[in-house]
Amino acid sequence: MSNAVTVERVYNFSAGPAVLPEPVLEQVRDEMLCLPGVGSSVLEISHRSPAFEEILDNTTQGIRNLFQVNDDYEILFLQGGSRLQFAMVPMNLIPAGESADYLVTGSWSQKAAQEAVGLTDSKIVWDGKPDRYRSVPQTGDYETNTAARYLYYCSNETIQGVQFQDHPEGKNLVCDASSDFLSRPMDISKHAVVYACAQKNAGPAGVNVVILRRDLLDAIPDGLPGYLDYRSHVDAGSRYNTPPTFAIYVTGLVLNWVEQQFGSLESIQKHNEQKCALLYDVIDRYSDFYIGHAVERDRSKMNVTFKFDNEKFDALFKTMAAERQLTNLGGHRSVGGIRASIYNAMPVAGVQTLADFMEEFAQQNG
Amino acid sequence: MSNAVTVERVYNFSAGPAVLPEPVLEQVRDEMLCLPGVGSSVLEISHRSPAFEEILDNTTQGIRNLFQVNDDYEILFLQGGSRLQFAMVPMNLIPAGESADYLVTGSWSQKAAQEAVGLTDSKIVWDGKPDRYRSVPQTGDYETNTAARYLYYCSNETIQGVQFQDHPEGKNLVCDASSDFLSRPMDISKHAVVYACAQKNAGPAGVNVVILRRDLLDAIPDGLPGYLDYRSHVDAGSRYNTPPTFAIYVTGLVLNWVEQQFGSLESIQKHNEQKCALLYDVIDRYSDFYIGHAVERDRSKMNVTFKFDNEKFDALFKTMAAERQLTNLGGHRSVGGIRASIYNAMPVAGVQTLADFMEEFAQQNG
Repeated sequence: MSNAVTVERVYNFSAGPAVLPEPVLEQVRDEMLCLPGVGSSVLEISHRSPAFEEILDNTTQGIRNLFQVNDDYEILFLQGGSRLQFAMVPMNLIPAGESADYLVTGSWSQKAAQEAVGLTDSKIVWDGKPDRYRSVPQTGDYETNTAARYLYYCSNETIQGVQFQDHPEGKNLVCDASSDFLSRPMDISKHAVVYACAQKNAGPAGVNVVILRRDLLDAIPDGLPGYLDYRSHVDAGSRYNTPPTFAIYVTGLVLNWVEQQFGSLESIQKHNEQKCALLYDVIDRYSDFYIGHAVERDRSKMNVTFKFDNEKFDALFKTMAAERQLTNLGGHRSVGGIRASIYNAMPVAGVQTLADFMEEFAQQNG
Repeated sequence: MSNAVTVERVYNFSAGPAVLPEPVLEQVRDEMLCLPGVGSSVLEISHRSPAFEEILDNTTQGIRNLFQVNDDYEILFLQGGSRLQFAMVPMNLIPAGESADYLVTGSWSQKAAQEAVGLTDSKIVWDGKPDRYRSVPQTGDYETNTAARYLYYCSNETIQGVQFQDHPEGKNLVCDASSDFLSRPMDISKHAVVYACAQKNAGPAGVNVVILRRDLLDAIPDGLPGYLDYRSHVDAGSRYNTPPTFAIYVTGLVLNWVEQQFGSLESIQKHNEQKCALLYDVIDRYSDFYIGHAVERDRSKMNVTFKFDNEKFDALFKTMAAERQLTNLGGHRSVGGIRASIYNAMPVAGVQTLADFMEEFAQQNG
């Protein structure tokens, strides 16, 4: 029945869209022509059909269970990526003449802050740029404004590879958790909004999970365009317009996989800590050769970033890695160097193969 | 290798997300674990990888070729469905204090007009509501305002089943072609903007094709949020943020299928005309029993809508149809009745089976 392409799969260290669990891809493949009991592909079913209702409910419930999200929060599935949330958050949460506070720890929080500052009177209360975004602030490093409607942060900066080890102190936290969502526990109850585009740990590109404290809905300014008003999506149960049904379906399958494979976010966190330790250990043992970007305390468990003292090694490293089926290790085009993104679905074997290669490469060239 | 689910496929008359060509679904299935030559799933590859560049280029070129879109136009792939375009079009095309004209021929153009009227000084210059949206205006039925920045219309109203047989007369036409895009030729050069969400004829839910005349970019007001400014997407080649890579990939495969199966939009138009004639013929022969919604001249070739004089037949019709594997025939929840959506990928055999059933049902109950 199937002419499945049988090319060997590589270890894909892409920062996103990124590697997905193989059992999830296999289920997507096997159900592609007919969702069981439905007689149509998941790509073909109405967003108002009972089959999709079930997918949407399961995906919502999967998030609710894993993060223990209580009923004070709505869970939405939106489009337009984090970029659209950069605008929707201030448009919805900051009434005219008011402001919010932003912690800027890398490229993504910088872009989010820029959007908010453009639309409102918001303030950057801590900026890591002078130190090339190598760290995140600790309590006492910044002062929030009493009148600020929220304190914004990006839990993990994919480009620089710095990560908050816990949420910062502040009222009405808003978190862009795009690149570490589902990789560890998170206390949603400390937040006003948590959002995450799926294409790192949670699913394919095309959907953004938005977890929103319900009382915020009352203060949304009137007159926003329909799609940009959170209330439209809450009132319509994420079906104000046709949602990205396939991306929600795959996200649901990834949530099932996390539950079955790891049981809890605590367990997947431990797994991710073990994985990144394999790479940071090599970096620390060859610290004259591999120059890590983040300060040790704030290292990302998702995106391991480093450089060589001599840039000539960049290309050689990537070429030799690719020969071992270790792919997409280039740093973001804005910073260069090397970046290994090791999200939930990257198997230990892939990280170990990379660690072994790094050891060998350092011995040969260091 | 595959545990493909082998349930029989039904004839799915859903209005969208809707039936897709089986060869496309088979290719998606077969490539799900490894895109040929890449070693990763299409769900896992970076939107900046050479493999995705090729997908994006091919999809863009497929549209350009089929519609003969000239170089005055940009082709973008955005998120947020038509709903977000309802706002983006006036935000980008109408400078402060100016306006546009709207033709309202059904539920979707009504919602689009409402959004524009809320954001700007725009005017509805023709409204089909008093006649329950049974027709579209002809030249002379409406008067445009000289100062209007564009004339907006929806080429096919999915809910009511009325369709413009050709574009209306007017300057700077803006067309929501969501539900008949790719089903027939369209003179793009008569338009300022044509947009279409993919989930009817062109692909799965999650991507909106926007064809935009380049000179309009010069007049976009400054200060729009990044995602909402067309220039962000043009400058970044549809990768201002991570685009819905999978939906673009499937749309590309559907374009290939249209080219291989039909060769041209003229040819697929003929095919669609033959399909809808099978149903309208039964409606006309049993016109006391099947009450078509649209006036004959403006009948949709995509969504065939009708009612029974006695509403009790609605449920019986749907139940008996479902027994013949003819599914999703309910009218939109806002209007009731019956709706058969017969997009490009609905095979003639499916439409013929429905026509035969309608004949039989009328003879038994009429």
